[in-house]
Amino acid sequence: MRCEIIGVGTELLMGQTTNTNARDISRELSALGVGVYYQSVVGDNRERLEEVFKCALERVELVILTGGLGPTSDDITRDTVTEVLGLSLEKNEEWEQRLEEFFKRLGRTMVESNRRQALIPQGAILLPNHRGTAPGIYLEKEGRTVVMLPGPPRELFPMFREQVIPRLQAGLEERGNLAVLKSKVLRVIGLGESAMAEQIQPILEAQENPTIAPLAKGTEVHLRITARAAAPEEADRLISAKVAEIREALGDHVYGEDDEKLEFVVARLLLESGQTVALAESCSGGLLSHRLTNVPGSSSYLLGGFVTYSNEAKIEVLGVEKRLLEAKGAVSAEVASMMAEGARKLCGANIGVGITGIAGPGGETPEKPVGLTYIALSAPGAEFARRYEFWGSRLEVKERASQTALHLLRLYLLGKIA
Amino acid sequence: MRCEIIGVGTELLMGQTTNTNARDISRELSALGVGVYYQSVVGDNRERLEEVFKCALERVELVILTGGLGPTSDDITRDTVTEVLGLSLEKNEEWEQRLEEFFKRLGRTMVESNRRQALIPQGAILLPNHRGTAPGIYLEKEGRTVVMLPGPPRELFPMFREQVIPRLQAGLEERGNLAVLKSKVLRVIGLGESAMAEQIQPILEAQENPTIAPLAKGTEVHLRITARAAAPEEADRLISAKVAEIREALGDHVYGEDDEKLEFVVARLLLESGQTVALAESCSGGLLSHRLTNVPGSSSYLLGGFVTYSNEAKIEVLGVEKRLLEAKGAVSAEVASMMAEGARKLCGANIGVGITGIAGPGGETPEKPVGLTYIALSAPGAEFARRYEFWGSRLEVKERASQTALHLLRLYLLGKIA
Repeated sequence: MRCEIIGVGTELLMGQTTNTNARDISRELSALGVGVYYQSVVGDNRERLEEVFKCALERVELVILTGGLGPTSDDITRDTVTEVLGLSLEKNEEWEQRLEEFFKRLGRTMVESNRRQALIPQGAILLPNHRGTAPGIYLEKEGRTVVMLPGPPRELFPMFREQVIPRLQAGLEERGNLAVLKSKVLRVIGLGESAMAEQIQPILEAQENPTIAPLAKGTEVHLRITARAAAPEEADRLISAKVAEIREALGDHVYGEDDEKLEFVVARLLLESGQTVALAESCSGGLLSHRLTNVPGSSSYLLGGFVTYSNEAKIEVLGVEKRLLEAKGAVSAEVASMMAEGARKLCGANIGVGITGIAGPGGETPEKPVGLTYIALSAPGAEFARRYEFWGSRLEVKERASQTALHLLRLYLLGKIA
Repeated sequence: MRCEIIGVGTELLMGQTTNTNARDISRELSALGVGVYYQSVVGDNRERLEEVFKCALERVELVILTGGLGPTSDDITRDTVTEVLGLSLEKNEEWEQRLEEFFKRLGRTMVESNRRQALIPQGAILLPNHRGTAPGIYLEKEGRTVVMLPGPPRELFPMFREQVIPRLQAGLEERGNLAVLKSKVLRVIGLGESAMAEQIQPILEAQENPTIAPLAKGTEVHLRITARAAAPEEADRLISAKVAEIREALGDHVYGEDDEKLEFVVARLLLESGQTVALAESCSGGLLSHRLTNVPGSSSYLLGGFVTYSNEAKIEVLGVEKRLLEAKGAVSAEVASMMAEGARKLCGANIGVGITGIAGPGGETPEKPVGLTYIALSAPGAEFARRYEFWGSRLEVKERASQTALHLLRLYLLGKIA
């Protein structure tokens, strides 16, 4: 079954509201195996809604309209849809009574425009709204299913989940085409989108079911694996097999799945190994500390963090040698290493991490461009510093520096570098 | 000029991504007086994109496509659009060279799929991407303007604002149908949305042109003032008058305008007064350091930051008295003050800021709930600590703590508290 979601509302077209309804409905339908083929948005304009709705009826079997069911004259969804389908409106006595009770309880007068909210197209099912006055409408006609839902997400979403999903599911079961669509995201680090695509090219080219979609996401790449099957277990099995194949091809570049961010993976490795860490940050300015402390319980492995922006702080707080700093410059492998070691010793931690670089804009020299960053790790039996050239804005350089430091920390904790 | 925005990407149809691009572009176009009549979303499917794009060409004069410009084979936007318009692709030598340099600097191999990103339709204008490898494309053909933009918002939005808006504006001016819609945002801190609305109720009720729209934004409230006029100067004049009125009513609660974030305002005040600062963070975990170092040139006023999560670090690094820590607990006014003072002395800064609290989840006691936070400031002639109960998730508590610390720092620098 193919679906189109039509959002109705000029506020969406003016960019005053984000279309989270389309996203939330799409997510639920995907899980049910209903393919959302199109999302559309149109303003509170009868002629254009008519055009868009007619187009949807031609290309999909399920049309879901959101918004435009309120009591004012710019709420046009119900009337337009009813007219296009050649139906007439009839009063739903039960809902009219509910509205009367509702206004009585509020001590407000029920005006004519409210009374009109009890009108629904003939033959349609009224979906009670437990959080507002506009009911939803569910109707089937000539092989098409049309659903109208109120715009406010807190009214729409429970109604959709509790009253629409079960009806769609029943219909799919009847027709014997209930397919499940499940997906998993693999989170990849240390490879660009195209380099990654090249490493798994045979897998990407042979894809059918599951499908595999790469997506660049800031400092990492995500691979979305989506399987379609008759039952959830079958979809899971298909996904697991594909995940194993991709993990085999990408090795340690796959650091996590679904919503598990890199700092959470590193936190888990620290907790599992019982190790502690101390951080010394210059160009990343505290972002690494911030990220690691976003993990609940981080106090048990993060002993301390130092933002040593100035040379004085590097010398006086972390014990970086002044002579070395002057000879090599603040942005150097040597200083990164001494920062990592200094933080580690100061806090009595197992591992120290040092980051020094040029976040920009400005501050570069002919030998040291903006983005040049050294990241060092100091632990018993492991002392190293690596050189990077990050690109982008100041914030992006900070993000890449913190991301790369977490990546190195992860590899160290996995015993993959020393 | 009528516009349609087409989002391309299966991740949008699966509900894995929110279509913020459509919202952000719509908002900018509205301000320019361009009417967005339709927003559409279609998956990475050539046939359906062709259908949707052809439909757009028939009903609007400006078509903006977002996404599907990446290097992998499921990125179909450029090729599909070029074909529908009956054009052919040609290599943009300059961009190819930029890509080569980019990959060389990164020490990565440029693969064939990357090289293809330098191809654009004949006669089109290439829009350089300063944050990624996919350039944007701007082209005009037979009375239609077609713009293709990369999907990631941080690549798309600056490109749209800096390279597309001016071109559209020039076109509108040429045709003489530029009605000016200008807007300014006032950034408000220390007042909730409804409390603020109450303080400016007469202004809100009398609004006509300019209009005034309040919007709660995380830890602050924004007021968007939008004026419509025949000429920009007239719109500016209308806005200035309204801004003065609102500033009069809200006083110090208005801390900035438009995109000027609180950390940038504080940075400016520090630079202007020639003062320096040192930070000691417990529950905020480095977020305050991170925010203050997002400001270019922060090294001249931020002397150092300490993330002292553990009691040991508070004692050994910052010199918090062990006895006091045991008597009052780590989350107390006294410890916040000693942290602020410790950081200040350690770095030789003019001002020290100390933050200690319970970010949660977990860690609360009957007397000390999650969200309880003390923020202290230590400066010659000003020593104080304030108690707050923040609500929300761990990240939200961190954000509120850092925001409030910046707010206090700002008031201190303005001479409004001591």
